[in-house]
Amino acid sequence: MTFLKILGYTAGFISMTSFIPQVYKTWKVKSAKDVSIQMFIIYSTSTFLWIVYGIKSDPVQYPICVPNTIVLFLSIAQVILKIKYDRAEKNAQK
Amino acid sequence: MTFLKILGYTAGFISMTSFIPQVYKTWKVKSAKDVSIQMFIIYSTSTFLWIVYGIKSDPVQYPICVPNTIVLFLSIAQVILKIKYDRAEKNAQK
Repeated sequence: MTFLKILGYTAGFISMTSFIPQVYKTWKVKSAKDVSIQMFIIYSTSTFLWIVYGIKSDPVQYPICVPNTIVLFLSIAQVILKIKYDRAEKNAQK
Repeated sequence: MTFLKILGYTAGFISMTSFIPQVYKTWKVKSAKDVSIQMFIIYSTSTFLWIVYGIKSDPVQYPICVPNTIVLFLSIAQVILKIKYDRAEKNAQK
Protein backbone atom coordinates (compact mmCIF):
# COMPACT_ATOMS: atom_id res chain seq x y z
CA MET A 1 0.00 0.00 0.00
CA THR A 2 1.33 3.42 -0.94
CA PHE A 3 1.78 6.37 1.41
CA LEU A 4 -1.00 8.18 -0.43
CA LYS A 5 -3.48 5.33 0.05
CA ILE A 6 -2.69 5.10 3.76
CA LEU A 7 -3.15 8.88 4.01
CA GLY A 8 -6.54 8.66 2.27
CA TYR A 9 -7.76 5.82 4.45
CA THR A 10 -6.57 7.63 7.60
CA ALA A 11 -8.31 10.87 6.57
CA GLY A 12 -11.50 8.94 5.76
CA PHE A 13 -11.40 7.06 9.04
CA ILE A 14 -10.84 10.23 11.06
CA SER A 15 -13.65 12.17 9.34
CA MET A 16 -15.91 9.17 9.96
CA THR A 17 -15.20 9.12 13.71
CA SER A 18 -15.62 12.91 14.07
CA PHE A 19 -19.41 12.73 14.36
CA ILE A 20 -19.31 10.32 17.31
CA PRO A 21 -18.42 12.93 20.00
CA GLN A 22 -21.29 15.21 18.91
CA VAL A 23 -23.93 12.47 18.97
CA TYR A 24 -22.55 11.19 22.29
CA LYS A 25 -22.54 14.68 23.83
CA THR A 26 -26.13 15.38 22.75
CA TRP A 27 -27.26 12.03 24.10
CA LYS A 28 -25.41 12.64 27.38
CA VAL A 29 -26.42 16.25 28.11
CA LYS A 30 -29.91 15.72 26.60
CA SER A 31 -29.75 19.10 24.88
CA ALA A 32 -28.79 20.26 21.41
CA LYS A 33 -30.08 23.82 21.53
CA ASP A 34 -26.87 25.30 20.10
CA VAL A 35 -26.46 22.62 17.45
CA SER A 36 -27.51 23.59 13.92
CA ILE A 37 -30.02 21.09 12.55
CA GLN A 38 -29.39 22.47 9.05
CA MET A 39 -25.76 21.40 9.25
CA PHE A 40 -26.66 17.79 9.94
CA ILE A 41 -29.47 17.69 7.37
CA ILE A 42 -27.16 19.11 4.69
CA TYR A 43 -24.38 16.76 5.75
CA SER A 44 -26.74 13.75 5.62
CA THR A 45 -27.69 14.75 2.06
CA SER A 46 -24.05 14.92 1.03
CA THR A 47 -23.18 11.54 2.57
CA PHE A 48 -26.17 10.06 0.73
CA LEU A 49 -24.85 11.47 -2.56
CA TRP A 50 -21.37 10.10 -1.76
CA ILE A 51 -22.87 6.64 -1.19
CA VAL A 52 -24.64 6.82 -4.59
CA TYR A 53 -21.34 8.03 -6.11
CA GLY A 54 -19.48 5.08 -4.58
CA ILE A 55 -22.08 2.54 -5.72
CA LYS A 56 -22.34 3.95 -9.25
CA SER A 57 -18.54 3.88 -9.63
CA ASP A 58 -17.08 0.94 -11.49
CA PRO A 59 -15.77 -0.91 -9.51
CA VAL A 60 -17.90 0.00 -6.48
CA GLN A 61 -15.80 2.23 -4.22
CA TYR A 62 -16.17 0.72 -0.77
CA PRO A 63 -13.76 3.21 0.89
CA ILE A 64 -16.33 5.88 -0.08
CA CYS A 65 -19.50 3.86 0.57
CA VAL A 66 -18.70 2.38 3.98
CA PRO A 67 -17.55 5.47 5.94
CA ASN A 68 -20.32 7.61 4.41
CA THR A 69 -22.96 5.05 5.39
CA ILE A 70 -21.74 5.18 8.99
CA VAL A 71 -21.66 9.00 8.99
CA LEU A 72 -25.14 9.07 7.41
CA PHE A 73 -26.48 7.04 10.34
CA LEU A 74 -24.68 9.23 12.89
CA SER A 75 -25.88 12.39 11.18
CA ILE A 76 -29.51 11.22 11.08
CA ALA A 77 -29.19 10.18 14.74
CA GLN A 78 -28.02 13.73 15.52
CA VAL A 79 -31.03 15.23 13.70
CA ILE A 80 -33.44 12.94 15.58
CA LEU A 81 -31.83 13.68 18.97
CA LYS A 82 -31.88 17.41 18.23
CA ILE A 83 -35.61 17.35 17.37
CA LYS A 84 -36.36 15.20 20.42
CA TYR A 85 -34.52 17.35 22.97
CA ASP A 86 -35.64 20.66 21.45
CA ARG A 87 -39.23 19.48 21.74
CA ALA A 88 -38.69 18.28 25.33
CA GLU A 89 -37.17 21.64 26.24
CA LYS A 90 -40.07 23.52 24.66
CA ASN A 91 -42.62 21.40 26.52
CA ALA A 92 -40.76 21.91 29.80
CA GLN A 93 -40.96 25.68 29.34
CA LYS A 94 -44.73 25.61 28.94
CA MET B 1 -18.69 15.79 -17.92
CA THR B 2 -20.07 12.41 -16.84
CA PHE B 3 -23.03 11.89 -14.48
CA LEU B 4 -20.62 10.45 -11.92
CA LYS B 5 -18.36 13.50 -11.99
CA ILE B 6 -21.31 15.86 -11.59
CA LEU B 7 -22.51 13.71 -8.67
CA GLY B 8 -19.08 13.86 -7.03
CA TYR B 9 -18.79 17.63 -7.42
CA THR B 10 -22.34 18.10 -6.10
CA ALA B 11 -21.65 15.88 -3.07
CA GLY B 12 -18.39 17.73 -2.40
CA PHE B 13 -20.04 21.12 -2.73
CA ILE B 14 -22.90 20.18 -0.40
CA SER B 15 -20.61 18.75 2.30
CA MET B 16 -18.54 21.94 2.04
CA THR B 17 -21.52 24.20 2.65
CA SER B 18 -22.85 22.10 5.54
CA PHE B 19 -20.55 23.74 8.10
CA ILE B 20 -21.79 27.26 7.32
CA PRO B 21 -25.13 27.01 9.24
CA GLN B 22 -23.36 25.79 12.39
CA VAL B 23 -20.74 28.55 12.40
CA TYR B 24 -23.44 31.12 11.61
CA LYS B 25 -25.72 29.83 14.36
CA THR B 26 -22.96 29.91 16.97
CA TRP B 27 -21.97 33.42 15.92
CA LYS B 28 -25.60 34.55 16.04
CA VAL B 29 -26.74 33.01 19.35
CA LYS B 30 -23.29 33.58 20.93
CA SER B 31 -23.40 30.17 22.57
CA ALA B 32 -22.04 26.76 21.65
CA LYS B 33 -22.55 24.94 24.93
CA ASP B 34 -24.14 21.88 23.30
CA VAL B 35 -21.64 21.73 20.44
CA SER B 36 -18.91 19.12 20.76
CA ILE B 37 -15.49 20.75 20.41
CA GLN B 38 -13.97 17.29 19.85
CA MET B 39 -16.07 16.86 16.72
CA PHE B 40 -14.67 20.00 15.14
CA ILE B 41 -11.09 19.34 16.24
CA ILE B 42 -11.23 15.82 14.80
CA TYR B 43 -12.89 17.11 11.63
CA SER B 44 -10.25 19.82 11.22
CA THR B 45 -7.57 17.13 11.47
CA SER B 46 -9.25 15.05 8.78
CA THR B 47 -9.66 18.01 6.39
CA PHE B 48 -5.97 18.82 6.91
CA LEU B 49 -5.06 15.23 5.96
CA TRP B 50 -7.35 15.45 2.90
CA ILE B 51 -5.57 18.63 1.81
CA VAL B 52 -2.19 16.87 2.11
CA TYR B 53 -3.67 13.92 0.20
CA GLY B 54 -4.88 16.21 -2.58
CA ILE B 55 -1.55 18.04 -2.83
CA LYS B 56 0.55 14.86 -2.76
CA SER B 57 -1.61 13.30 -5.52
CA ASP B 58 -0.24 13.50 -9.04
CA PRO B 59 -1.76 15.58 -10.58
CA VAL B 60 -2.79 17.74 -7.60
CA GLN B 61 -6.47 17.05 -6.88
CA TYR B 62 -8.06 20.47 -6.59
CA PRO B 63 -11.62 19.09 -6.09
CA ILE B 64 -10.24 17.58 -2.86
CA CYS B 65 -7.94 20.45 -1.82
CA VAL B 66 -10.27 23.42 -2.35
CA PRO B 67 -13.43 22.29 -0.48
CA ASN B 68 -11.37 20.83 2.38
CA THR B 69 -9.46 24.09 2.77
CA ILE B 70 -12.75 25.97 3.11
CA VAL B 71 -14.13 23.43 5.60
CA LEU B 72 -10.85 23.54 7.55
CA PHE B 73 -11.29 27.30 8.00
CA LEU B 74 -14.96 26.91 8.98
CA SER B 75 -14.13 24.11 11.39
CA ILE B 76 -11.33 26.09 13.06
CA ALA B 77 -13.68 29.10 13.25
CA GLN B 78 -16.21 26.88 15.04
CA VAL B 79 -13.57 25.72 17.55
CA ILE B 80 -12.51 29.33 18.24
CA LEU B 81 -16.13 30.53 18.64
CA LYS B 82 -16.89 27.60 20.95
CA ILE B 83 -13.91 28.37 23.19
CA LYS B 84 -14.76 32.08 23.20
CA TYR B 85 -18.44 31.72 24.11
CA ASP B 86 -17.86 28.90 26.62
CA ARG B 87 -15.36 31.16 28.39
CA ALA B 88 -17.74 34.14 28.28
CA GLU B 89 -20.51 32.00 29.75
CA LYS B 90 -18.21 30.74 32.52
CA ASN B 91 -17.15 34.28 33.40
CA ALA B 92 -20.76 35.45 33.41
CA GLN B 93 -21.64 32.74 35.95
CA LYS B 94 -18.90 33.85 38.38
